[in-house]
Amino acid sequence: MNTSDVSNIIQLGGTILKTARSMEFMTIEGREQAYNNLKSANIDALVAIGGDGTFTGARIFSQEFGFPIVGVPGTIDNDLYGTDFTIGYDTALNTIIEAVDKIRDTATAHERLFFIEVMGRDAGYLALNGGIASGAEAVLIPEADTDITTLENFIQSGFRKSKNSSIVLVAEGDKAGGAFQIAKQVENDFPQYDVRVTILGHIQRGGSPTASDRILASRLGIASVEALLDDQQSVMVGIVNDEVELVPFSRAIKYDKKLNPDLFKAIKILST
Amino acid sequence: MNTSDVSNIIQLGGTILKTARSMEFMTIEGREQAYNNLKSANIDALVAIGGDGTFTGARIFSQEFGFPIVGVPGTIDNDLYGTDFTIGYDTALNTIIEAVDKIRDTATAHERLFFIEVMGRDAGYLALNGGIASGAEAVLIPEADTDITTLENFIQSGFRKSKNSSIVLVAEGDKAGGAFQIAKQVENDFPQYDVRVTILGHIQRGGSPTASDRILASRLGIASVEALLDDQQSVMVGIVNDEVELVPFSRAIKYDKKLNPDLFKAIKILST
Amino acid sequence: MNTSDVSNIIQLGGTILKTARSMEFMTIEGREQAYNNLKSANIDALVAIGGDGTFTGARIFSQEFGFPIVGVPGTIDNDLYGTDFTIGYDTALNTIIEAVDKIRDTATAHERLFFIEVMGRDAGYLALNGGIASGAEAVLIPEADTDITTLENFIQSGFRKSKNSSIVLVAEGDKAGGAFQIAKQVENDFPQYDVRVTILGHIQRGGSPTASDRILASRLGIASVEALLDDQQSVMVGIVNDEVELVPFSRAIKYDKKLNPDLFKAIKILST
Amino acid sequence: MNTSDVSNIIQLGGTILKTARSMEFMTIEGREQAYNNLKSANIDALVAIGGDGTFTGARIFSQEFGFPIVGVPGTIDNDLYGTDFTIGYDTALNTIIEAVDKIRDTATAHERLFFIEVMGRDAGYLALNGGIASGAEAVLIPEADTDITTLENFIQSGFRKSKNSSIVLVAEGDKAGGAFQIAKQVENDFPQYDVRVTILGHIQRGGSPTASDRILASRLGIASVEALLDDQQSVMVGIVNDEVELVPFSRAIKYDKKLNPDLFKAIKILST
Repeated sequence: MNTSDVSNIIQLGGTILKTARSMEFMTIEGREQAYNNLKSANIDALVAIGGDGTFTGARIFSQEFGFPIVGVPGTIDNDLYGTDFTIGYDTALNTIIEAVDKIRDTATAHERLFFIEVMGRDAGYLALNGGIASGAEAVLIPEADTDITTLENFIQSGFRKSKNSSIVLVAEGDKAGGAFQIAKQVENDFPQYDVRVTILGHIQRGGSPTASDRILASRLGIASVEALLDDQQSVMVGIVNDEVELVPFSRAIKYDKKLNPDLFKAIKILST
Repeated sequence: MNTSDVSNIIQLGGTILKTARSMEFMTIEGREQAYNNLKSANIDALVAIGGDGTFTGARIFSQEFGFPIVGVPGTIDNDLYGTDFTIGYDTALNTIIEAVDKIRDTATAHERLFFIEVMGRDAGYLALNGGIASGAEAVLIPEADTDITTLENFIQSGFRKSKNSSIVLVAEGDKAGGAFQIAKQVENDFPQYDVRVTILGHIQRGGSPTASDRILASRLGIASVEALLDDQQSVMVGIVNDEVELVPFSRAIKYDKKLNPDLFKAIKILST
Repeated sequence: MNTSDVSNIIQLGGTILKTARSMEFMTIEGREQAYNNLKSANIDALVAIGGDGTFTGARIFSQEFGFPIVGVPGTIDNDLYGTDFTIGYDTALNTIIEAVDKIRDTATAHERLFFIEVMGRDAGYLALNGGIASGAEAVLIPEADTDITTLENFIQSGFRKSKNSSIVLVAEGDKAGGAFQIAKQVENDFPQYDVRVTILGHIQRGGSPTASDRILASRLGIASVEALLDDQQSVMVGIVNDEVELVPFSRAIKYDKKLNPDLFKAIKILST
Repeated sequence: MNTSDVSNIIQLGGTILKTARSMEFMTIEGREQAYNNLKSANIDALVAIGGDGTFTGARIFSQEFGFPIVGVPGTIDNDLYGTDFTIGYDTALNTIIEAVDKIRDTATAHERLFFIEVMGRDAGYLALNGGIASGAEAVLIPEADTDITTLENFIQSGFRKSKNSSIVLVAEGDKAGGAFQIAKQVENDFPQYDVRVTILGHIQRGGSPTASDRILASRLGIASVEALLDDQQSVMVGIVNDEVELVPFSRAIKYDKKLNPDLFKAIKILST
């Protein structure tokens, strides 16, 4: 392998590369087939873009066949240990705030209670930061154990007095239930509110990437190939405090990234 | 009233003007109160922006108090008789296609069946034209009597062969039920599909207006004031074939605007 | 030729098709070469997307070789006779107003005089409608013979009193000169103004197409193939008053489309 | 002062606050007037949003009148010492890449050489990172001493072979001259190229802020008020490695922030 391939490799990415969960790859026969395909195509190493699941598979494959794989963190949830940001997160976050901005336009006009469901089955990065950035009145995330009574007390206390609108961001994985369940119960308990629901769904996974995501992907793309040229394997390349770092797959998979407590404080101050 | 007020009047609009349904206005006492408010504020005439409901109220008020009102068609549904386009429709339509574009990014990547619910309780303009503009595989609208069996036959016949994605736009008012109900039944009948739902909701009512909507609003704003200066009342100003026309409230309320049959043909050809 | 090709044909378009001016095609030898290429590729007919230049070439080629060509109007300038709108115009117009909106954000903050050059060498559609839609204080277009003295009188009279900003849209083909020339002279004559220039350039030719442009392209794409199947040739398909019309190339080339005088009135009222 | 004012203070910002350079403030009489205005309005402290110039004025004012001021870094250039990012930078960067994306749409179609001038009189952050994020073929920034001969050699060597487009980002302050000057000379020396120029200008200073900028502004807004409540003054609040830091105005003004050398490497690899 030599450096002249670098630019070709890093041109790939995003929606150009197709992606799918493979059932066959979960069997040893499927992985053998994959290994043979790689060999017959003269491919000597792989850059695997993804999250926990991708790296778990990559680690097993690498161990079984002695095949060098370096990982690049790509998930909109931003919950990977070993990197400050994951590719896709900034784009998804901007998609969310553009959506909330549009809803707020009529929120000021109509006096309503809006529940907006965003992605993040296990991690509240998108909901929490989306809430701070869009000025949501409340945010429900998996990391905080908000029950619906707490939310209803908050609603009853009148949200923020100086604001006309009432927007609640709900992470899809929140323990209180999806946005629809929550909306139904609140509507039941507060019939005076006109409650509306938006489910962003896969809108959050597409769109033209932001500048931050492109620069991150460019830097990590370069770093991943450099790592392979340097005989690294079974590591994820990440960026921590603006410097490239290598993290063994085993650690990236095992540990969780914690939300910065400053952000909890921020949403509290801003929505009070 | 004189022309020097025109530019002040037409600067108002959209999200700057607050909007709300008034219960009091539905009683004669409430309307008397409104009339007295207008008189004491030295307001001699009104430009009412809205749809059927707004014009119905405006017509009654105008008759009861001899108060001149001219209407400007403002609804994202585009279903008003007497004007080719209503203010807000083009903006909502572009919001929809931007959302569908983003979903399609992962639709090509994942092999899934997406149901996207758009607005239009009684009118399929947004869903039908949104479907043409975004290349949806199928569109369910109130005007067509699609039952779920027809949709399922269409799914079973494999959608369009040359396309990876399968996106169905559902108008919220479609007889087959909301996107969630449809998705649930399809998921039940075709367990092999990975079915996902997006509910755009009030995202469609906000955002910076498109060029078309701004030009339309500018022209209709000017036309409405000119109509008042010309002693017109109880009429809606509309644009038909690029010319301003006046339509009595009674007609605008009574008649429905029909979908252009060319558009039905287009979605059929484009999705086959 | 049969209808099953329709959907393939109309999938092409925009930036996917490459485009270039061909010098060889301007010679009879070059066109013979083109004809032979078409024949050996078993191509029986062409849909030509473009403006005056494209249709002039298409007409000559069609006459010389008896080869059926139908034209689809595609130019951001919107100045083609025989169709209300050309593909690309609405997208370019929205790009312009997004740019002007961003400039206005600091225009209110800084008290400056901004000159923004937009496209339109021979036609003022983009500048005039862009000006109405973005609330520009003045618009300089090829169709109006504004000299710089008139502009300076307008500046001296203080623009609109109630507005902080001063934004002038300049069509690149305006007789007074490009935005830079105008800015230089104004800066010279009014040293108290902080004069700034933006040249949008080819930004106006790209971007994801708007809903309007996509629906227009879909309808015209279908109409062009239907016209070929109906043995039409040397005609452009256009949309006039929401209906498809056929216009001989000779007429589309010979006549100019006139700006709606309502729009001149609108910009005058709105900027006063 | 107490914490209940925090949320009011940090709601202000961006284009809502007007901004202007004040000549009077550069005289001691003007600053005395400012001090008296503040006193009579019962204002006890200030949060100053800006860059070097703002902080220089703030420092003098604070020393002269013993008036507490805390600074928040707000400039699209991102060149302030003591903070990883300045408010406005991420938004401007995304505006640039959206513009370049649109130009590239026709760059692939036409075989042209585009020069795009971006802001950054003394700092190349926008041009360099904009170049990486948008895949520009070359970037001219103040920090690098590129003369036009080097650029022309680069052009002559054919840019990147695998790319159709040729886009050069030029920081307005680049030593080789503005985009127009450079374009003129290149056009002169390489008449075979079709050279086009775009000047983004103040488009880069407006627009709806990105998620990153909003979160940064929220965190710094909170931090600035907390600093004032903690009796700090003449310091700028910044974020370094995701933690809030205080930097004396004197240091923030005196030192320059250096571009990360990784980015130089990235643009070289990506454009080769």
